[in-house]
Amino acid sequence: MEVLTKSREELKPLIEVDKRAVLLLSGGTDSTTLLYDLVSQGYEVKPISFIYGQRHKKEVQNALATCSKLGLGLEVVDISIFGQLAPSSLTSRGKDIPKGGYEDGNMRSTVVPNRNMVLLSIATSYALGLRIDNVFYAAHSGDHAIYPDCRPAFILALGKALKLCDYIRVNLETPYMYWEKSDIIRRGIGLGVDYSLTWSCYEGGEKACGKCGTCIERLEAFKKVGIKDPLEYKED
Amino acid sequence: MEVLTKSREELKPLIEVDKRAVLLLSGGTDSTTLLYDLVSQGYEVKPISFIYGQRHKKEVQNALATCSKLGLGLEVVDISIFGQLAPSSLTSRGKDIPKGGYEDGNMRSTVVPNRNMVLLSIATSYALGLRIDNVFYAAHSGDHAIYPDCRPAFILALGKALKLCDYIRVNLETPYMYWEKSDIIRRGIGLGVDYSLTWSCYEGGEKACGKCGTCIERLEAFKKVGIKDPLEYKED
Repeated sequence: MEVLTKSREELKPLIEVDKRAVLLLSGGTDSTTLLYDLVSQGYEVKPISFIYGQRHKKEVQNALATCSKLGLGLEVVDISIFGQLAPSSLTSRGKDIPKGGYEDGNMRSTVVPNRNMVLLSIATSYALGLRIDNVFYAAHSGDHAIYPDCRPAFILALGKALKLCDYIRVNLETPYMYWEKSDIIRRGIGLGVDYSLTWSCYEGGEKACGKCGTCIERLEAFKKVGIKDPLEYKED
Repeated sequence: MEVLTKSREELKPLIEVDKRAVLLLSGGTDSTTLLYDLVSQGYEVKPISFIYGQRHKKEVQNALATCSKLGLGLEVVDISIFGQLAPSSLTSRGKDIPKGGYEDGNMRSTVVPNRNMVLLSIATSYALGLRIDNVFYAAHSGDHAIYPDCRPAFILALGKALKLCDYIRVNLETPYMYWEKSDIIRRGIGLGVDYSLTWSCYEGGEKACGKCGTCIERLEAFKKVGIKDPLEYKED
């Protein structure tokens, strides 16, 4: 029997995968890990962040710090007006952010209605302008319980629409969709992510509060991985 | 054989249809007709218009004039920054708008990438904030040839995503999707639409140019209906 061997040249894929990507970068742990992940895979990444009327800009400041560390530019888009149109305790300074874990019903007030479609659709316009057809988004399974627009059913439906929005078929890529936050942190630790330059807390204080839903989720994830979170908390 | 009769009370639908709607109102012929159409059907309409970096604001000015005439408020959302992110001859003052009909390949430069998903997703956030679950959009068949994000396949896919974006199922309603522009004008004439308060021309001159793709389409539609377009054109 003849042994078929192939040269390295023959093994090269017929079509080179386009390794350029737009990434929705919030400055939190998940999207920051995905940025490192894509860079380590050889992607040319164009990160994009949004000021959409959040109560504070700590996340965006951290996104800028991470990009600066990696020698990347960051497109920061100011759609503050969106916060007035779409009321939520995350965007209305007057409302209190509820304390407690994501499982609590009162966390619903932190939902900014249809936020992710707004941000991803603008990120897609940005990608199309650059002739890039990959849009990455670090949704993960921890968000599914509380945020409808982080759930797989929504993301898959949105992905289908994005494939049809232009002459170019846009790929919405969500590699962490079924991962837990601890899986993401574990990967990030391996990639050398500087988590001191990531912000999760809903409050915008000098130090993270350690008590809101996203602080609790983050602290639990680091505990599960067995690593101390390098971020400073009010009560350490 | 017994004749079954029903009282008026019994004929009343079990669930009252929610007759509140957010409408994407550009100030052109199609969305203005749909506004009149919805008002005539008893809808409480919340129109929303966008300044997204268009070369001129004639359409939005006309949208305001129509709403004022109908005694309705208009939510005008300024996302001018979008025009810088998503290059197009409709949003970049430096580029010339091509002359000729929609069928011409050069009209592609007027496509603002993924514009409709951006506008509809923000309109949906606005609707959700008001607890309204109907979002109306006056896409019609004349746009299908040139604009990917006006095609039924895209609109149906986007509609599925919008049903999943929140705890509330949002309905994306596009009653003119398979209509020609002349069908829309014909309906509008019956509804008493004041088409002198609508603007279609890509240019923002004192009078409409009569030569760009959208002027040609509009003039042909009025001709087909057998009515004179009340808008003033440069060369009448």
